[in-house]
Amino acid sequence: MKKNILIIGAGGVGQVVAHKAAQHNDVLGDIHIASRTVEKCHRIIQSILEHKALKRPGILAAHALDATDISATRALIERTRAQIVINVGSAFLNMSILEACLETGAAYIDTAIHEDPDKVCESPPWYANHEWQRKQACKQRGVTAILGAGFDPGVVNAYAALAAERYFDAIESMDIIDVNAGSHGRYFATNFDPEINFREFTGTVWSWQQGQWTPNRMFEVSRQDDLPVVGNQTTYLTGHDELHSLSANLDVPNIRFWMGFGAHYINVFTVLNSLGLLSEKPVKTAEGLEVVPLKLVKAVLPDPASLAPTYEGKTWIGNLMRGSWNGTPREMLLYNICDHADCYRETGSQAISYTAGVPPVAAAMLVADGTWDAHRMVNVEELPPAPFLDLLGRMGLPTRVRLGDADMPLEDALGTDEERRTGS
Amino acid sequence: MKKNILIIGAGGVGQVVAHKAAQHNDVLGDIHIASRTVEKCHRIIQSILEHKALKRPGILAAHALDATDISATRALIERTRAQIVINVGSAFLNMSILEACLETGAAYIDTAIHEDPDKVCESPPWYANHEWQRKQACKQRGVTAILGAGFDPGVVNAYAALAAERYFDAIESMDIIDVNAGSHGRYFATNFDPEINFREFTGTVWSWQQGQWTPNRMFEVSRQDDLPVVGNQTTYLTGHDELHSLSANLDVPNIRFWMGFGAHYINVFTVLNSLGLLSEKPVKTAEGLEVVPLKLVKAVLPDPASLAPTYEGKTWIGNLMRGSWNGTPREMLLYNICDHADCYRETGSQAISYTAGVPPVAAAMLVADGTWDAHRMVNVEELPPAPFLDLLGRMGLPTRVRLGDADMPLEDALGTDEERRTGS
Repeated sequence: MKKNILIIGAGGVGQVVAHKAAQHNDVLGDIHIASRTVEKCHRIIQSILEHKALKRPGILAAHALDATDISATRALIERTRAQIVINVGSAFLNMSILEACLETGAAYIDTAIHEDPDKVCESPPWYANHEWQRKQACKQRGVTAILGAGFDPGVVNAYAALAAERYFDAIESMDIIDVNAGSHGRYFATNFDPEINFREFTGTVWSWQQGQWTPNRMFEVSRQDDLPVVGNQTTYLTGHDELHSLSANLDVPNIRFWMGFGAHYINVFTVLNSLGLLSEKPVKTAEGLEVVPLKLVKAVLPDPASLAPTYEGKTWIGNLMRGSWNGTPREMLLYNICDHADCYRETGSQAISYTAGVPPVAAAMLVADGTWDAHRMVNVEELPPAPFLDLLGRMGLPTRVRLGDADMPLEDALGTDEERRTGS
Repeated sequence: MKKNILIIGAGGVGQVVAHKAAQHNDVLGDIHIASRTVEKCHRIIQSILEHKALKRPGILAAHALDATDISATRALIERTRAQIVINVGSAFLNMSILEACLETGAAYIDTAIHEDPDKVCESPPWYANHEWQRKQACKQRGVTAILGAGFDPGVVNAYAALAAERYFDAIESMDIIDVNAGSHGRYFATNFDPEINFREFTGTVWSWQQGQWTPNRMFEVSRQDDLPVVGNQTTYLTGHDELHSLSANLDVPNIRFWMGFGAHYINVFTVLNSLGLLSEKPVKTAEGLEVVPLKLVKAVLPDPASLAPTYEGKTWIGNLMRGSWNGTPREMLLYNICDHADCYRETGSQAISYTAGVPPVAAAMLVADGTWDAHRMVNVEELPPAPFLDLLGRMGLPTRVRLGDADMPLEDALGTDEERRTGS
């Protein structure tokens, strides 16, 4: 049993994490929020108080922290007596926060893979370049580290585990599809920091096909799906964290990640990228001023946080899996739909932050009650998926299942499946 | 009879003007080239010598000049004994150079309207805001000032005058069409300084329709024409200098200017403009650096001068006129086609600079021999068009005529027309 949460990172996702932790502080205990900019933590606390989100009276505190400083992070963990650290800060901070957890014994949970600021799209599998090098250390010290416990990676890894465990004898292909069918109503905007957003698309796209890593360019391969509720959507083969653990942990020869982009988004991206305006390398103007083009582009684009109040529509994220069950072919879709405006009303963030921020809190609750307190480093697919998906359903991220002609809530499907399993 | 030429401006057009003046220095006398950056003048002289362009041995000299300084310009005119000044410098210099001509008595020739650096698209008619305010002064002092003697404005004004004089009893509409059907082979580039290029399109588009000034937005109105040699072309209603004198000097109720843009150009322009990246107003990056977006865009785009060596294809500029002749409807097309690679071989500049640079030299030759030495301020349509067009034909810019089913060189048409006229 572990308690007291230290949340590191106070952006849109941090805001959701803090709100959701507050809603469950009966289980989680004290809630501490740390960021290099302490004012952002204070604003989140203000929002939690305004929403009356704390389930019961309890500690809710803001801290200034440079999380690249391991000893400062260690000191804060010790001072707050936090036994669970949720890292939703920059992708550049994972390894130093993990180290502080190793030194203090606190459980570590993050939602995205470590990135080296100087490298765009490292060689696969990405986890092996950084996090997995500390697997042995976690095991020796009995430290729980849950990697990639957002939605994707995170919930989609649990979908994969659930399918492998209960619905298939063999999975031939797993296509993870992530669509934002919502609209921010601006000419163009990125849903999170443009500097990080565009990095995902300017390098090589790696996917796991026929049991090996396959390189593509961004926007080179697309698919069309008629998805429940959000309808016909075009998505593009994209590199993404979860492929790098699922390919190692599951025996599935084809695992691909597809992200939805409108033609307009792709057009703007292509123009900016082709002109060199997404470059991280400085150029000199005729007047002699050195400017990093990407930083100017960031300056002219809307602040992603400013989009939430008027965001409309839904996000759609799920796994389409094909394989066999009892000797016959089977196709299964596990998915979640989330509404931007609902998320904003509840937490002050839109659905993209919400879907990323609720799962690590669910993971923390499962660590707190022991269900997921693995005492080693794991990716989400290595943990029991049903308690996680069940808890998420009650926390605002319900899962639906489409199997054959039926489309139903996960809890019904689990029943059906159990009946089938026992009946067969 | 006037002689000795002072060319102010040493860009791509200045290079063509200097080359062509050198080819006719038997008529024009000494050739002086002045620019704020004297090295650019020296490079042009080098190019003239390499091309052996001087018709006969003569003076060819470079001068450093800040042409906003009227007394310095006056002193240079006096020192060089130039009796004709060709202004192909920045559009911001017209009024100060004109003043120096008024003080010295030198003839003044330019190719584009004066612009105030702080104003984008002033109210029509543009000439009345600046140049025409000096009409009286020119007349009093007997100074010849020929405004807008490039191709458009310039040759297209002569096309208008020729049509009004010889081919129509009444002209109902005049559509001036400017198409660059060539290709520079880059992803995107502007054909001249991006800062000036984009200014043409970010303000209101003024046209002369049904006898009054009509405002539109850029890319709001388009037309399609199947043009001789270059084929089917889409052009867009654009504001342009010549409308502002033709509407005053000719009795034509509809005068419009159409510029050709490919879908790709418009797309890139629209993306950059919509994101605010064409703005002249500085923005501040997250790091606190103040950057004028347009200056960064200029820095990432190819240098226009670098396009000339590999430019392929042709420019097409002409007037489509509809009206009546002897009581029957008539449509007439007067046009020029110019080849980028041919221009580069002859002068080291591509066809866009060539079509703008040859006409002011032809105008200077007509001033030199007295044909166009008007001793007052005029726009090109106020001068006899035939000698100008005839001379241009011999200088590399031949005019063709399409009238009914016939399409022929202008010299043949003038013959045909004369015969018709006499025969009728």
